[in-house]
Amino acid sequence: MSENRTELSSLGEFGLIEHLTANIEIKNASTLVGVGDDAAVIDHFGKQTVITTDLLLDGVHFDLMYTPLQHLGYKSVIVNLSDVYAMNATPTHITMSIGVSNRFSLEAMDEFYEGVYAACEAYGVDLVGGDTANSQKGFVISVTAIGEVTPDKFVKRSTAKKGDLLCCSGDLGAAYIGLILLEREKRIFLENPQIKADLENEKYVIGRLLKPEARKDIIEFFEQAGVQPTSMMDISDGLSSEILHICRQSELGCVLYEEKIPISEETRNAAYKFELDPTACALSGGEDYELLFTVAQEDYEKLVLNEQISVIGYMTEPEKGKKIITKGGNTFDITAQGWNAFVSK
Amino acid sequence: MSENRTELSSLGEFGLIEHLTANIEIKNASTLVGVGDDAAVIDHFGKQTVITTDLLLDGVHFDLMYTPLQHLGYKSVIVNLSDVYAMNATPTHITMSIGVSNRFSLEAMDEFYEGVYAACEAYGVDLVGGDTANSQKGFVISVTAIGEVTPDKFVKRSTAKKGDLLCCSGDLGAAYIGLILLEREKRIFLENPQIKADLENEKYVIGRLLKPEARKDIIEFFEQAGVQPTSMMDISDGLSSEILHICRQSELGCVLYEEKIPISEETRNAAYKFELDPTACALSGGEDYELLFTVAQEDYEKLVLNEQISVIGYMTEPEKGKKIITKGGNTFDITAQGWNAFVSK
Repeated sequence: MSENRTELSSLGEFGLIEHLTANIEIKNASTLVGVGDDAAVIDHFGKQTVITTDLLLDGVHFDLMYTPLQHLGYKSVIVNLSDVYAMNATPTHITMSIGVSNRFSLEAMDEFYEGVYAACEAYGVDLVGGDTANSQKGFVISVTAIGEVTPDKFVKRSTAKKGDLLCCSGDLGAAYIGLILLEREKRIFLENPQIKADLENEKYVIGRLLKPEARKDIIEFFEQAGVQPTSMMDISDGLSSEILHICRQSELGCVLYEEKIPISEETRNAAYKFELDPTACALSGGEDYELLFTVAQEDYEKLVLNEQISVIGYMTEPEKGKKIITKGGNTFDITAQGWNAFVSK
Repeated sequence: MSENRTELSSLGEFGLIEHLTANIEIKNASTLVGVGDDAAVIDHFGKQTVITTDLLLDGVHFDLMYTPLQHLGYKSVIVNLSDVYAMNATPTHITMSIGVSNRFSLEAMDEFYEGVYAACEAYGVDLVGGDTANSQKGFVISVTAIGEVTPDKFVKRSTAKKGDLLCCSGDLGAAYIGLILLEREKRIFLENPQIKADLENEKYVIGRLLKPEARKDIIEFFEQAGVQPTSMMDISDGLSSEILHICRQSELGCVLYEEKIPISEETRNAAYKFELDPTACALSGGEDYELLFTVAQEDYEKLVLNEQISVIGYMTEPEKGKKIITKGGNTFDITAQGWNAFVSK
């Protein structure tokens, strides 16, 4: 082993991926999109295939103390399908690998797979393979999703144009508040197991964390309405982090309006309870699995037909920077508060 | 959670997979082969895509104490490519996900990826995606390989015919002896770090364990020689276990000749040193990544041209059972000594 030692935390997740993939030379002409987007795109004699994969680790990406296994199975599939939709593609197949310790029973595995199959059913995808390994400790989940896209309809992160409208689907920040809430309940429970949590009013934000959906409907809407987004990705690490990805990969700046960021009433109320700023939750909280995309201005009329889509800003030339205009009328730089996997917490 | 508790160890790896996938209903007409073979096969408008995935866990599938990271990266790719070749297909793309703890440095990751890229280079595949996660402990590797196959040339495990010749590539048992050897050296080292191992004479068996290759050449030979195997799989869990898979899935019996099982001189010598039966190593040792396949009898003349292929037996009607005829002329039942992931060791 080399004598130098560079800590992984000094690069961050995206820095590490960039470092490790910097020298890739594509060998197959069929590779249309490789590393660096929501998914890869492969050409199979005119028909284009989309591939994406996610690794979920116990204690890092989920906490079994408050995550029902059925929901975990469902979510493991959803996070991958979301990446396929973010390419403007339709998922068709998944593979699912799991590593489990003997601490888990067959009944627990059945619950997990109930969720997996429920997601497959809901989104019309086939589970076609996987691997099952005995882990020494904890639970490891690795999912790969495969999809198809009409030739050249796939949408990358790097192709936004100056003047394009910046848009997102659904509402943001709820999953983050759900996480804060469940983490608090966990601490309370660990200190005093007698106290039983009343989470009846928080169903929405908890549901958004534990059982997210992928925005199949938005992709179908694009098809029906004849909208071809100019760039797109899914929002898994928080709005600000994802906007910066699109700006960087498209070599553009942007203006984002705070007042346009869609945040649900339930999220606002729960945020205030924790004395958190709902906008900060939307900007920096992850796991919403909504879509962030840009469209040409002339598509505006088509978009307003869909209540699930918000126009939140527009793309500018790179020199103008990446700016947010607050409700109070102030302008700030957008900073990445996205999750850095390698900074120890 | 349900009140019943069934231990995973009571099913074994294959039992668990069968249980979890028993009720799958295929939703996409494009799914030609789903769960239960080396890889899945998907039809993309006439062009057929093959997909397979493997999960490798630190302390279960590899031991970092004696596995150089570069070799580990190489092998992680190879084990997946081997499954693609076992479908008579050509791998084209992989995704690679890793979970690493902060204990690993960037330099260590670079070594691992050097091996990954070396394998991609050697086999002409593109790395097109992946995921990088911070694990709390240990090293998790998940690889998915995608390949293509000329329509309807893919080979399943379930299509062997009575009278077909049972064949395998290369030689068997070496990786198992390599493992036994390195495990012994590890124990000696842990007891007395001053003793330095002399493994010069054992390069072959250690190399077979740490840096296996996938049998691309055999698939190319089939193409050139015009041989279409009637069934095929790769030998990752030991010859006997894999033969039983082909018999069960093809609903046949077989006769295997001990004297025909290819075992290298190096493997024999190393086995004798450990007072192990070389045949038992070939039958029950795993990780050889050779191909096991059946061909119609009329293809025999074509096969003999390839020194890397051994005819080791033939397929019979199911009532005749699965038999091995020893060098001494005795007949025994073949029993699965394949690796059971969920029996605690």
